Amino acid sequence: MTIDPQLAQRVSDFYYRYSESLCDLQIEQWPEYFTEDCTYRIVSRPNHDQGLRIGPMFAENKGALQDRVLAIKETLVYSARSLTHLVSGARVMDGPESALRTRSMVAVYQTLVDGITQLQLVGRTFDVIDARGPELKFRERVVVFDTELLAGALVYPV
Amino acid sequence: MTIDPQLAQRVSDFYYRYSESLCDLQIEQWPEYFTEDCTYRIVSRPNHDQGLRIGPMFAENKGALQDRVLAIKETLVYSARSLTHLVSGARVMDGPESALRTRSMVAVYQTLVDGITQLQLVGRTFDVIDARGPELKFRERVVVFDTELLAGALVYPV
Amino acid sequence: MTIDPQLAQRVSDFYYRYSESLCDLQIEQWPEYFTEDCTYRIVSRPNHDQGLRIGPMFAENKGALQDRVLAIKETLVYSARSLTHLVSGARVMDGPESALRTRSMVAVYQTLVDGITQLQLVGRTFDVIDARGPELKFRERVVVFDTELLAGALVYPV
Repeated sequence: MTIDPQLAQRVSDFYYRYSESLCDLQIEQWPEYFTEDCTYRIVSRPNHDQGLRIGPMFAENKGALQDRVLAIKETLVYSARSLTHLVSGARVMDGPESALRTRSMVAVYQTLVDGITQLQLVGRTFDVIDARGPELKFRERVVVFDTELLAGALVYPV
Repeated sequence: MTIDPQLAQRVSDFYYRYSESLCDLQIEQWPEYFTEDCTYRIVSRPNHDQGLRIGPMFAENKGALQDRVLAIKETLVYSARSLTHLVSGARVMDGPESALRTRSMVAVYQTLVDGITQLQLVGRTFDVIDARGPELKFRERVVVFDTELLAGALVYPV
Repeated sequence: MTIDPQLAQRVSDFYYRYSESLCDLQIEQWPEYFTEDCTYRIVSRPNHDQGLRIGPMFAENKGALQDRVLAIKETLVYSARSLTHLVSGARVMDGPESALRTRSMVAVYQTLVDGITQLQLVGRTFDVIDARGPELKFRERVVVFDTELLAGALVYPV
């Protein structure tokens, strides 16, 4: 499948803005990157390879993402931290405009106050994007991480 | 703002060539990526978030960058090292051709002779590019690093 | 040299698919990214800078890559591991369609079963791509790594 450069550019731009919202700690923007009926999950590679869906984060619609945001802002107890995401290889594989299959690689670096910068996780994402509207939206996002021992709790999404 | 794919490609190419010059240790090429009246600085995220401009590197014009190059080549005492930059998310946000607002994420890996490879810093860059001439130039480049404890002195720019 | 956005997109897509094959542990796909008369090698930066070609992997044609695949699948003894590659700065420098000179930066993260994720290597790649056919192919790929002390044996190619 040959990808139109304009579409390829829209998709990589979307991935980059998504990461920027998380790195800028603008967590309330996060659900806006998803459709109403989205699914979102983070899963370890061994579980993913066996078809298991269990993992440290799971949501079945945008409301669940908004609940997560509320938890991060109001309920959860955790140390303040800075995040930098490096996203590589964001590209369209195939699929219709309503459900483009895309993927990417990602590394998440976390820095606690007065702490050293740690690689929190590395992995691949397997995503489905709705490209029909003026703004792209994730219909599905699955983050498959290699890192078996996560450096600290996974407070923020990826 | 919809970005023209040709412009998006010119900007990412510019970021990549900039990193290559630094990774190839062609430090004398570094000032050529800037306008005469550029500003350049590296600042920690906590300082940046408070609007403070103090940080480990600061320059108010291209001449100051050239002075820094001279210092690196002639004056500073430091161990030889290899650098690899990974740049992600280089993209145009908005702005006129004379002052495009762009940003990126970056990780800098440093390897001393006979040493292990260390993550020197990770962070975000907030930049302004003059895109009117045949070559893009940074009018402003601000590197905001998360890493509070830098692994060794910051000899080379980012 | 101004690069056509369509070509730039084809090249970055090619680099990303190449990395995906390796990260997905689809090692048998690896030789298919190369021409029959390809050369492939991995070399340390100090050796590369001195014009030396010796390094941990070397192949002078596609058959040698296929032999390597067979060794990985049948002969070599090593621990199971997950890989994530982050590729940055994949771009066309110049050259005719039959031999585009391209380069990239790469970080390879390796995770052994029950282990922590380690940065296995970081470095630059200097490549030549044949862009005449429907599929791009590497005619030459040279991976120059900064990391002098590799974290464990280099089982898989980069």
